[in-house]
Amino acid sequence: MRRRLRLGMIGGGQGGFIGAVHRMAARLDDRYELVAGVLSSDAQRSRASGADLLLDADRCYGTLNEMLKAEAARLDRIDVVAIVTPNHLHHGPAKAFLQAGFHVICDKPLTTTIADAEDLVETADRVQCVLAVTYNYSGYPLVRHAREMIAAGELGELRVVQVEYAQQWLSTALESEGQKQATWRMDPESAGVAGAVGDIGTHSFHLAEFVTGLRVQRIAADLSAHVPGRKLDDNAQMLLRFANGARGALWASQVALGNENGLRLRIHGSKGGLEWSQEAPNQLRFTRLGHPPQLVTRGGAGAGPLAASATRIPAGHPEGYIEAFAQVYRDIADWIAAVNDGATPSANASLVPTAQEGLRGVRFIHAAVASSQRNAAWTEL
Amino acid sequence: MRRRLRLGMIGGGQGGFIGAVHRMAARLDDRYELVAGVLSSDAQRSRASGADLLLDADRCYGTLNEMLKAEAARLDRIDVVAIVTPNHLHHGPAKAFLQAGFHVICDKPLTTTIADAEDLVETADRVQCVLAVTYNYSGYPLVRHAREMIAAGELGELRVVQVEYAQQWLSTALESEGQKQATWRMDPESAGVAGAVGDIGTHSFHLAEFVTGLRVQRIAADLSAHVPGRKLDDNAQMLLRFANGARGALWASQVALGNENGLRLRIHGSKGGLEWSQEAPNQLRFTRLGHPPQLVTRGGAGAGPLAASATRIPAGHPEGYIEAFAQVYRDIADWIAAVNDGATPSANASLVPTAQEGLRGVRFIHAAVASSQRNAAWTEL
Amino acid sequence: MRRRLRLGMIGGGQGGFIGAVHRMAARLDDRYELVAGVLSSDAQRSRASGADLLLDADRCYGTLNEMLKAEAARLDRIDVVAIVTPNHLHHGPAKAFLQAGFHVICDKPLTTTIADAEDLVETADRVQCVLAVTYNYSGYPLVRHAREMIAAGELGELRVVQVEYAQQWLSTALESEGQKQATWRMDPESAGVAGAVGDIGTHSFHLAEFVTGLRVQRIAADLSAHVPGRKLDDNAQMLLRFANGARGALWASQVALGNENGLRLRIHGSKGGLEWSQEAPNQLRFTRLGHPPQLVTRGGAGAGPLAASATRIPAGHPEGYIEAFAQVYRDIADWIAAVNDGATPSANASLVPTAQEGLRGVRFIHAAVASSQRNAAWTEL
Amino acid sequence: MRRRLRLGMIGGGQGGFIGAVHRMAARLDDRYELVAGVLSSDAQRSRASGADLLLDADRCYGTLNEMLKAEAARLDRIDVVAIVTPNHLHHGPAKAFLQAGFHVICDKPLTTTIADAEDLVETADRVQCVLAVTYNYSGYPLVRHAREMIAAGELGELRVVQVEYAQQWLSTALESEGQKQATWRMDPESAGVAGAVGDIGTHSFHLAEFVTGLRVQRIAADLSAHVPGRKLDDNAQMLLRFANGARGALWASQVALGNENGLRLRIHGSKGGLEWSQEAPNQLRFTRLGHPPQLVTRGGAGAGPLAASATRIPAGHPEGYIEAFAQVYRDIADWIAAVNDGATPSANASLVPTAQEGLRGVRFIHAAVASSQRNAAWTEL
Repeated sequence: MRRRLRLGMIGGGQGGFIGAVHRMAARLDDRYELVAGVLSSDAQRSRASGADLLLDADRCYGTLNEMLKAEAARLDRIDVVAIVTPNHLHHGPAKAFLQAGFHVICDKPLTTTIADAEDLVETADRVQCVLAVTYNYSGYPLVRHAREMIAAGELGELRVVQVEYAQQWLSTALESEGQKQATWRMDPESAGVAGAVGDIGTHSFHLAEFVTGLRVQRIAADLSAHVPGRKLDDNAQMLLRFANGARGALWASQVALGNENGLRLRIHGSKGGLEWSQEAPNQLRFTRLGHPPQLVTRGGAGAGPLAASATRIPAGHPEGYIEAFAQVYRDIADWIAAVNDGATPSANASLVPTAQEGLRGVRFIHAAVASSQRNAAWTEL
Repeated sequence: MRRRLRLGMIGGGQGGFIGAVHRMAARLDDRYELVAGVLSSDAQRSRASGADLLLDADRCYGTLNEMLKAEAARLDRIDVVAIVTPNHLHHGPAKAFLQAGFHVICDKPLTTTIADAEDLVETADRVQCVLAVTYNYSGYPLVRHAREMIAAGELGELRVVQVEYAQQWLSTALESEGQKQATWRMDPESAGVAGAVGDIGTHSFHLAEFVTGLRVQRIAADLSAHVPGRKLDDNAQMLLRFANGARGALWASQVALGNENGLRLRIHGSKGGLEWSQEAPNQLRFTRLGHPPQLVTRGGAGAGPLAASATRIPAGHPEGYIEAFAQVYRDIADWIAAVNDGATPSANASLVPTAQEGLRGVRFIHAAVASSQRNAAWTEL
Repeated sequence: MRRRLRLGMIGGGQGGFIGAVHRMAARLDDRYELVAGVLSSDAQRSRASGADLLLDADRCYGTLNEMLKAEAARLDRIDVVAIVTPNHLHHGPAKAFLQAGFHVICDKPLTTTIADAEDLVETADRVQCVLAVTYNYSGYPLVRHAREMIAAGELGELRVVQVEYAQQWLSTALESEGQKQATWRMDPESAGVAGAVGDIGTHSFHLAEFVTGLRVQRIAADLSAHVPGRKLDDNAQMLLRFANGARGALWASQVALGNENGLRLRIHGSKGGLEWSQEAPNQLRFTRLGHPPQLVTRGGAGAGPLAASATRIPAGHPEGYIEAFAQVYRDIADWIAAVNDGATPSANASLVPTAQEGLRGVRFIHAAVASSQRNAAWTEL
Repeated sequence: MRRRLRLGMIGGGQGGFIGAVHRMAARLDDRYELVAGVLSSDAQRSRASGADLLLDADRCYGTLNEMLKAEAARLDRIDVVAIVTPNHLHHGPAKAFLQAGFHVICDKPLTTTIADAEDLVETADRVQCVLAVTYNYSGYPLVRHAREMIAAGELGELRVVQVEYAQQWLSTALESEGQKQATWRMDPESAGVAGAVGDIGTHSFHLAEFVTGLRVQRIAADLSAHVPGRKLDDNAQMLLRFANGARGALWASQVALGNENGLRLRIHGSKGGLEWSQEAPNQLRFTRLGHPPQLVTRGGAGAGPLAASATRIPAGHPEGYIEAFAQVYRDIADWIAAVNDGATPSANASLVPTAQEGLRGVRFIHAAVASSQRNAAWTEL
């Protein structure tokens, strides 16, 4: 019988940001119900947060082990857990839940070390559970349409890929002012070896590979920190070389004053060019060699089946960040359903970023840091 | 004890459009749970639709009366019903549920006749239940910010208001091809006296009054139908005169090839000007006399508390149509909670379009048709 | 032998604005040389202005009659005179030069009264001289391309035409502060019966007819003045009915805070839609029924021969207002050459706005004022 | 006595592109008159081209030496010569005219070798003549305003500079099809060591230094050619390090399908950020830390005196590429006038790109090629 998946959550208590996004994403298409969680490392706060979310009190757990033990014992136990803690707290919970036979949804980057990421790949594979990584920008309908166009050869041979993710919010030393989001992201203890590169560089890297279907072979990266006292990079420029010979550049910055969440991708091939910007996500600019640019819209003429399957409302009615995030959640639900039933996953399920892609993101972070430490020397991925 | 409101739905079964939007809007902020409905006038289809939505079978009703009777008898009966049927089926269900003591959320236009709308105003007032009308575009954060700026005098005395709602989807005779949305909208039996004016003109009219805080005093309207065989207007131009002396124009069209859902509002006062477009809703262009235009963003610097209270995620992460619709639902939940508890409604609750505003929309439709029939003679509102 | 046309100028002395534009327009394509003028009604100032422009001292005249007499007596007399004075000083000089056998270029509106405009039409016709009116926006390449597309039927039957010209510069009473441009434009003595309608409404009216090839049959106009003490309209809304049944609206405002020179045209037909904005003139948005919008650029793929013939530099290198004005001058030169040589005018020469179109603009102004005086009653054109 | 400068031209005959641009630029502000030239290396074509331009037949020369000799002998000899030939033909004519005591305006890049550029620097210095290089994008009013803002400290300490110049016109092998512009640009004999880097990379490099006032200290460049058989680069990505510690990237491409002439500059400092795009040159996006972005327009509120001095017409009336080019010519005229009269040059004259900046551009080209040959190793400038 069809039913909603029962969702648990690790992290995401009062005062957080991304936990609330995961919950909205899970709710939007009605494929999940949140039923349990360790919403904070502070047991008191975890329970208070659970009450806010109308969870049953007995499923607002104080610790991971408590949750694992209690949920495993229930007939209506959770199907899947979403991990929305800071980076250094991804690997532990993910591994524990996988080993207990639960599916896992983990925020990016998958882990802080390559070894940990490899371990999760191996674990997920061994236990045959879903491990999905929320590279949420891959959920945008026109991002998928771009991928579909390129796969169909509409751009010809790809030549140039420019990707950037520009933000302004860390232009001052917010991490010294107790701003929670800034503090953990600029602390090597919780964020890992990189700042902007780990936080947003990974998103842009994934987006470029997801859409082009190409692999970045090597990078030459120049990382910098522009705010006095900052411990991790807040800006990075990189040269990219792709396996097929395409060239590109990646720019990730959190000190780019004037930019809110400027994730942009431009791809140029022998037959066509594409341009997409996250802040105007309902439109894709496509130019065919020798023709005027077209504005393909989500839901409009020219958008193909992949875009349509990620679209809820008609063209001109903007869908945004939450919808794209929800799309990833919806597709994960398809995947889990397929695994649970032993069925073939839906086409959309195959778009969900896996542990392998999570590992690749972690490799990217470490390659960028290593390249930069060697004065932007070319570094293999 | 805090709990989700139990929601019923009239209409919105398989094949519909706006019902699904209402459900996403109700889910997004987790203030409602859908528990019952007459999802179709066909009992079989109603039950099948309910099953799709994971409703309990015994709350998928075949008729309105069945639902009214059964729900009234339950301890866990619905709190509120959402009416998402074609226009001519608003008044009946709304009145019935109000009289039975349920709160009502009704899609626009409230009714097809002025008498029916007056009747609902009177009924809601008498039974002291909430009757909310989903002029959903009022839920956009920057629409509310615009309203707040004008109320605070930042534009000075308002002089000119240009509002338009341009769509292209009825550029051909879809209603002759069995397209469901087109068919009922262009049939006087189900749509009422107007086509584009009722369907989208009302939205733009409400938006103009909602944001400016002004009342349109009289209009001179020229309605036209450009597709052969069409029974109702698919295009309308109007001159507007506001009570304070401001002038304006309204354009509503469903044959404006090149436009998807082009609702746009421009307001010019003695001290400043504002411009907002529904297709790029996360940005408001504001020009202060003698200064360069500013781009105020949802969540960014310069957006005030009203916008903030309608915002879920940081600046640069686009929110769209569903979020705005959800905002209206969230505010309705606040209003209902206040009515149920006898408490003062929240500030946001006061923004919810009421039966009075529903009535005003119906008056607008009838004034536009009357004016046009008298060759665009000025007609009082 | 090919040579530059010798140009005289009436008005355009120190402190003016449009005279300098005419001179740049005349120079850009090297078809004219400015050789003579009465650059100011003040003889001293006329001569000083001429010296600034490197005119020979003996061709800087103090009065019209002086100029007429002296030029007529020269072997190298001027071919054509440009009249760039305030509106009330168009008819006199134009008639005098035409009667003396000179070609005339006159700024718009052609005259302040219909009788004067009719007189110029008759005079130009009688003396067989060129009388061109600088509706300069018709010189933009993509405006011409739009005209060509419509003439070729690419939009099908036209249904809706929305045109607007929104400026902010008269949001305060500049005419009370001695600002020269504002003073004469808001003085009925020099501007005629209308303010914004005469100054910019005429441009938008001409543009709509020029591009669509349709005639506006009747208008219902609501003129208003929003700045205390202002003697002429600074804002106007109008309903338009076209001869073929198309409907539309025109908005002209000089108190639209936030707008610099916002002339915009949108045209919707049964097969396609077009959108053009003067502030981004190098791009035309074209949507074919059932296809995504295209961005046709000046010089780019999809722009036809008419656009090409009005283009000087490659796509992506913006041309602007001066270039469009220069295009009208270039085409006038073609026309004059054809008249002088008795040859067939070039295709471009046929695009030059004639006295007939000047007259039509004056009729438009008077119809708008008359309609507004009768409370926006429909008025024939 | 004030008079127009007499201009000669080398190159720019029938079939060329940039020669016509120089002539329009020279004419627009009426500071020059074209009187002589060797318009083609083919004497016959040179004379025919001169006739087209209404030059006196005896000043349409067949060779450089003929022109030098004849002009030197005239009382009304040229003041200045504009060199608009392919790159390899810059140094010879420039040196010859300088040595003969004429001022020189030279298109970019100044020369094909560093030694030649150094030679011109030395020569111009020795003969005390003007040698100006037409980095024409520095003539845009808002480019100058950006420079002025940064010099005034409005952006604080600069941190990140992203510059790009993306074109599509060489996406196919036009140079094999006899297209004249492509042929010489992709031929090392005439273009020098670089393709896109020399043609457009130099413009973007100059723009970045001109606006920021910073010096690029070293670059790591990855040049590529994507069209089979192409001899020079058609695409380049570079990492930039500035002397003050700022970081950046430069992208120059002529195979970026979807781009016409996409020169864009983004600058981010500790107090503000700026963004400008050549295809929408009348607008500058400026964000002050903690404030909403502003749109500063050419001629509008917020544009300073430097922008004003490069502006001919009011805000909202677009000026474009020709006007910006003309601005450089106007400023060169100021400079020449100052040199000729021994006076202090105007403020604008100091903005004209000099031989030193020409040399710097040539160094940039050679550094980029050298870096790329060493696998994108950091290379000093």
